[in-house]
Amino acid sequence: MNEGTFVSALRALADDPAARGLDDDAAVLEFGGESLVVTHDTLVQGVHVREDEDPADIAWKLVAVNLSDLAAKGAEPLGVLVSHMLGEGDERFVRGLGEILAAHDVPLLGGDTVRAEGRRSWGCTAIGRATHTPVPDRRGAQVGDAVYVTGVLGRAMLGLEDRGSGSANDFAYRRPQPLLAEGRMLAPVVTAMMDVSDGLLLDCWRLARASRCTIQLERDSIPVADPGRADDCMRWGDDYQLLFTAPADAALPVAAACIGRVENEGGDVLRLDDEIVSPEDGLGYQH
Amino acid sequence: MNEGTFVSALRALADDPAARGLDDDAAVLEFGGESLVVTHDTLVQGVHVREDEDPADIAWKLVAVNLSDLAAKGAEPLGVLVSHMLGEGDERFVRGLGEILAAHDVPLLGGDTVRAEGRRSWGCTAIGRATHTPVPDRRGAQVGDAVYVTGVLGRAMLGLEDRGSGSANDFAYRRPQPLLAEGRMLAPVVTAMMDVSDGLLLDCWRLARASRCTIQLERDSIPVADPGRADDCMRWGDDYQLLFTAPADAALPVAAACIGRVENEGGDVLRLDDEIVSPEDGLGYQH
Repeated sequence: MNEGTFVSALRALADDPAARGLDDDAAVLEFGGESLVVTHDTLVQGVHVREDEDPADIAWKLVAVNLSDLAAKGAEPLGVLVSHMLGEGDERFVRGLGEILAAHDVPLLGGDTVRAEGRRSWGCTAIGRATHTPVPDRRGAQVGDAVYVTGVLGRAMLGLEDRGSGSANDFAYRRPQPLLAEGRMLAPVVTAMMDVSDGLLLDCWRLARASRCTIQLERDSIPVADPGRADDCMRWGDDYQLLFTAPADAALPVAAACIGRVENEGGDVLRLDDEIVSPEDGLGYQH
Repeated sequence: MNEGTFVSALRALADDPAARGLDDDAAVLEFGGESLVVTHDTLVQGVHVREDEDPADIAWKLVAVNLSDLAAKGAEPLGVLVSHMLGEGDERFVRGLGEILAAHDVPLLGGDTVRAEGRRSWGCTAIGRATHTPVPDRRGAQVGDAVYVTGVLGRAMLGLEDRGSGSANDFAYRRPQPLLAEGRMLAPVVTAMMDVSDGLLLDCWRLARASRCTIQLERDSIPVADPGRADDCMRWGDDYQLLFTAPADAALPVAAACIGRVENEGGDVLRLDDEIVSPEDGLGYQH
């Protein structure tokens, strides 16, 4: 059973046939008159983090990627649960965990520690409160909308190559910043939103597919950290910027680059300067 | 850093110094005028489940142990998130997951799939709504209370030895039943409650320590599946019965055996027929 089939089988089990929370957006749950946002991500040594990664950076990234999922929902964090496989560098793990929790004022609610030999993995569940309803997801892009992305893409990629240098790119790779404040400000304005975790092109393709529309991107308008390696920057993940669509005349509360348009022509999903691109072309990090 | 030190370090990070959710009770979060109960448990191949376990049984157990944590809070499940490491037998995993979700009418809200070589692990986060406040935890036992346990201990142990036979014990081992209805009925009556996941004696010791009291157990009153192996039955985990304390004259809404008393004499934590016992004596499954 390949991953797509497995996820489809899981979706068939889920109450909501779209089962947004499965490898997609965070799940939204109505509770006590509010909208609760819940997300879970697992990091595996040698897959999502390097074998020799500083455990402090692993802890930071573990929580950051989950908070980034809340950011894309315009949610404010209520707390996290962390599942930790005990091993080398646990002091460093605790330190990194403390740093990200303090940086975003997020309570550690609980979790689980397990002891096992072999490859380590870490899980985090983040719980948040939606600050705006309807809660944004990746399904709402409308024909005529503009497509935007915050920040600059490819900094984490450059940081990985520059690892340990203490440079700004190194920091971008090791300590990704979940854009919680930006997500909350954008939530009332956007028609669709998600974070860029697996590469801009792949995540644009996913947004377009979920919204059943065509996204037309303009290569020259995409902000990249190294123009000489624009193709790589657009395909590399780990930047955790926010990708969103909004009416073309909307006043945006945060700085973002307009990188394209939502169109609806035939069955194309994503076009880059009029060239049709798809995941088979290697648009980003598929896991 | 050993596990105790690690958990202590995490607790120091947590808002609530007792940090109930760390390898302990599920966490309780006030939200929208209600009490949300959140718990996360990870199962690791070769540690919590056998190498040759049927993936359908792994999926069942993964969700069941988390729902059992909700049961001990008197909470009704709102949904679960599942983190799954893809591999052999994924069809069976989906089937077992579907079975437990249907059995307890619990929505699958989302989760994460990862692909990795080597030892597999699975995570589950369960989210529930408390049906009674204050939400029971393991800290509330009062001197003079009676100590109770539901069901019979050691059936999962016998089932492991009898695995694949289709016997009732085999079923108890492979398909533990979270006592959600019982937990909800007991919540208004108990002074402290937890589920027995790691062995009755160890979990009694933990309850006594958390409540800062002495628990005196009577060996002959403890319901065991095999009286000839009572010591093993009291130390084996995986039964997921509910252990609780309540005033000695309370009318109980569910069947439970009275197995001892809460006393407060000196610094002893747990006594079994007047013999002091402690985790160093091997009271249960420590992981």
